[in-house]
Amino acid sequence: MHGFAFSTDVRVRFAETDAQGIAHHAAFAVWCEVARIAWLDAFAGGYDAIRARGIEALTTELVLRYRRAAAFHDVLTVWTRCGGVRGARFRFDYRIERGGELVADGHTSHATVDAVTRSPVRVPDWLAEAVRAARGA
Amino acid sequence: MHGFAFSTDVRVRFAETDAQGIAHHAAFAVWCEVARIAWLDAFAGGYDAIRARGIEALTTELVLRYRRAAAFHDVLTVWTRCGGVRGARFRFDYRIERGGELVADGHTSHATVDAVTRSPVRVPDWLAEAVRAARGA
Amino acid sequence: MHGFAFSTDVRVRFAETDAQGIAHHAAFAVWCEVARIAWLDAFAGGYDAIRARGIEALTTELVLRYRRAAAFHDVLTVWTRCGGVRGARFRFDYRIERGGELVADGHTSHATVDAVTRSPVRVPDWLAEAVRAARGA
Amino acid sequence: MHGFAFSTDVRVRFAETDAQGIAHHAAFAVWCEVARIAWLDAFAGGYDAIRARGIEALTTELVLRYRRAAAFHDVLTVWTRCGGVRGARFRFDYRIERGGELVADGHTSHATVDAVTRSPVRVPDWLAEAVRAARGA
Repeated sequence: MHGFAFSTDVRVRFAETDAQGIAHHAAFAVWCEVARIAWLDAFAGGYDAIRARGIEALTTELVLRYRRAAAFHDVLTVWTRCGGVRGARFRFDYRIERGGELVADGHTSHATVDAVTRSPVRVPDWLAEAVRAARGA
Repeated sequence: MHGFAFSTDVRVRFAETDAQGIAHHAAFAVWCEVARIAWLDAFAGGYDAIRARGIEALTTELVLRYRRAAAFHDVLTVWTRCGGVRGARFRFDYRIERGGELVADGHTSHATVDAVTRSPVRVPDWLAEAVRAARGA
Repeated sequence: MHGFAFSTDVRVRFAETDAQGIAHHAAFAVWCEVARIAWLDAFAGGYDAIRARGIEALTTELVLRYRRAAAFHDVLTVWTRCGGVRGARFRFDYRIERGGELVADGHTSHATVDAVTRSPVRVPDWLAEAVRAARGA
Repeated sequence: MHGFAFSTDVRVRFAETDAQGIAHHAAFAVWCEVARIAWLDAFAGGYDAIRARGIEALTTELVLRYRRAAAFHDVLTVWTRCGGVRGARFRFDYRIERGGELVADGHTSHATVDAVTRSPVRVPDWLAEAVRAARGA
């Protein structure tokens, strides 16, 4: 059991492949973002709900380990969970699979800042609560 | 003579290639933008000078004809000129070469709008004047 | 009536937005490609069916007219049709809508070439037939 | 002293910004690749020298820590070094600065594989030697 309860599918676009004939490694960062946005839609009222309150969520760290190549047109399942809420910080973990086989895994770290001043602000209670609710789901 | 006096070089990035082993066609749109920005730097005080006055330049049309494939690591020369200023509209033409050989050509059309209201505003006189000056250069 | 019978939806990714706060114009070229691939899946056995026969379909022209800005998270419907088969050439037309409202339209032209020699080869009969069948659908 | 002797400059493209008004975090992965390719040009005969010998260098890990936002048109200096050669594996470290100020740092891990069979092959002696020579430079 891999400990993820939420996933989003993406299909590898031709524009995301490179001259090695496989998906370019930077595309995985975009797919994790797509999955993060889908998670926020499902559990926290969407990314725009965060932005509407004058908060931006910056990405402070990106870690990806590539286990197998992904090819054009592959359907990948991006398992996603949010956690590690502490002060102005939180984290998303990812497990990218193709037909149950591990393709890549990793995480991103994020910081909530005031959209205008860019100063750190605590992760809002409703977002922290959404993380807890998603864990329980 | 191809009628261009200003150019910018770009080198094809590996991330810009695709599984056909050549540069992806959408990358050319980005290179034209890079050349446009360089033209604005050279002749009009930079793109930020436009934005600083509360104006955005939207892209309203993109036309590209691909004559030859570009490969990873190729150095491409993007010839660029601006013209066709009329009301809230102007246009950039491009000729992309590799070692003097035509790789692609095309143009983009643009509209100047108020950055807040998004209503069309006349191309500022100083930008129209920069276009004339660049033509004379 | 706009004369399109097939469409694919895409959702604007955050990575596809730019500092103007809207979808970057080059992203539309990628969405047209996504729609083209979906059309080939629906009517012609998929893009890999073409490549499996030793043929590459190169993009020789890209024309896009941007009518309205697209924002992060917008769902866009990319209407697509294929036609204009003649010799080694064919063409796709696109109409990109959001809730029935026109956002952008345009077309791409393509040439079929031998995957190894890169010489033009006639559009295969089965692909020309797929285009006719899709028109009738 | 940060222990890097080789760097490459990149300028943030408008297409690389996002609706937060800053460079999108996935763009940094592309800039590291640009720097890696420049390093290979400077010290190992270029990436094509590797590919010409029937070897592909796959990216197996990507780690980036974002310290400060990068804005449109910023010139970033990507300090790069290669090391950690062991069997079929090697690693690049990066330090991305703007005017001497740290913007991001991280590393990528790579594996050399046979271009056809995709089986791991030892890092070629001449590449391992290039790494040693660059360290001494």
